[in-house]
Amino acid sequence: MRIGKNKMKFDNRPIGVFDSGLGGLTVVAAMKKSLPDENIIYLGDTARVPYGDKSPSNIIRFGMEDASFLVSKGVKLIVVACNTVSAIAISEIRAKFADVPVIGVLEAGVAACLKAKPSSVAVIGTRATVSSDAYRREIHAVNHEISIRTIACPLFVPIVEEGLADSEICRLTIDFYMKSLKKEVPDMLLLACTHYPMLKKSFRKYLSRKVKIVDSAEACAKFAEEYLKKNSLAASKSSTGTERFYVTDMPDSFFKQAKKFLGRDLEHFQKVSISEN
Amino acid sequence: MRIGKNKMKFDNRPIGVFDSGLGGLTVVAAMKKSLPDENIIYLGDTARVPYGDKSPSNIIRFGMEDASFLVSKGVKLIVVACNTVSAIAISEIRAKFADVPVIGVLEAGVAACLKAKPSSVAVIGTRATVSSDAYRREIHAVNHEISIRTIACPLFVPIVEEGLADSEICRLTIDFYMKSLKKEVPDMLLLACTHYPMLKKSFRKYLSRKVKIVDSAEACAKFAEEYLKKNSLAASKSSTGTERFYVTDMPDSFFKQAKKFLGRDLEHFQKVSISEN
Repeated sequence: MRIGKNKMKFDNRPIGVFDSGLGGLTVVAAMKKSLPDENIIYLGDTARVPYGDKSPSNIIRFGMEDASFLVSKGVKLIVVACNTVSAIAISEIRAKFADVPVIGVLEAGVAACLKAKPSSVAVIGTRATVSSDAYRREIHAVNHEISIRTIACPLFVPIVEEGLADSEICRLTIDFYMKSLKKEVPDMLLLACTHYPMLKKSFRKYLSRKVKIVDSAEACAKFAEEYLKKNSLAASKSSTGTERFYVTDMPDSFFKQAKKFLGRDLEHFQKVSISEN
Repeated sequence: MRIGKNKMKFDNRPIGVFDSGLGGLTVVAAMKKSLPDENIIYLGDTARVPYGDKSPSNIIRFGMEDASFLVSKGVKLIVVACNTVSAIAISEIRAKFADVPVIGVLEAGVAACLKAKPSSVAVIGTRATVSSDAYRREIHAVNHEISIRTIACPLFVPIVEEGLADSEICRLTIDFYMKSLKKEVPDMLLLACTHYPMLKKSFRKYLSRKVKIVDSAEACAKFAEEYLKKNSLAASKSSTGTERFYVTDMPDSFFKQAKKFLGRDLEHFQKVSISEN
């Protein structure tokens, strides 16, 4: 694609990223690598985390409130880093906030999957994401030939949060959830939860080498990058990307957890109330 | 204790029991055994479960809203079946609802502990319950001689909910959290979470026979029974105890989980909204 000099436009407004909790910080970490010039605002709804075991009507309400908060901060793009919201509430969010483009970790994962053209995929995620069947629906909407299995794995999130990613408990839990992937080996494992990139190494060890693992955080950062380029929304190269982190609750374990997902200490953060919005 | 015939009074108003989710149904199950004549109203705040990883200010707000709902139903006694709320918010709830007596699973556990006069106790619970240090404070307020260890065990709740109570994953997780109780054996293990009675058999197998296990659900039912008797609040023997269950959200896994904790199918239940109260 050739772009004429006079067509170069920049947009230094921030990108808004939200998740039910801190898992979405894996998306911010991936974005900081591929989009270092971008300003990022992150919202983690830590007061109501996890969304994974809530009903669709509440997930829609929570997602609306999260998006509304980011819109009030003047973002140019909303990245839904929460798989549960991406799977269940993204069309409602798009309909309500028509002036701001909204992309989700689900469509990013689906795009990465379709690009690799696997013949069989295993999708793992929270109970709500899997129940929604959204990954299967979105993949099959484009390519109905791909065989898809979905597995709900509610134990993986607390295993990550307890720092047990390299433990025998984790190994057995992987075996508990993924035994069937040993017998009938898929071409691809799609990580449909922002906590799961922290378990990527353990999945790699457990599964056959031929299984390609699609990491939703990296896929999401990549997808955002392409969207910004295509729509002339990227920040100017000269700008230094800033970050602001907002959370709705700040329990004791907050900083330790945040550091785990972001890969470094959290700076410029603030506690906010969003449910009254 | 002798009671004159003319002093016999009965109170057929319901007992209100609440928890952050469905774990408190273990308390209802225990109460149905020891208090079959009582009418029970249960509220599970399944839209905001778990409380265990929320901050004190939110836990207080949620607990207030839960209690307010039960008070609006005309209960004669509020039983806080949520350890997190019992540990953090019970004085605020008592202060606000001065006309209705409030008892909590924490004081029930503490009472059962003090009665057995152990010289050393290990208290296990969610991160928030353990961080609050309330069990240690309450036990030491009466008997400062008892040596107390506390252990936060966030993985036990999802292990129960995944039906893994009898698994190797559970055994290793018990070992992960309780190794120190093998080296330095306490007289008592106090289960400070309403999910944990489901793991009692596994704890029993792991620990030395000399460790007495105090089950918070049974302790809470016993404590309620004694409170009702002492304050002439018990229902008449002739009455047949009814039950009503309210939840704030009803995800797919709801009925399966409820049955696990209650030991039978849930009847007479309703979804309600309480956060606007």
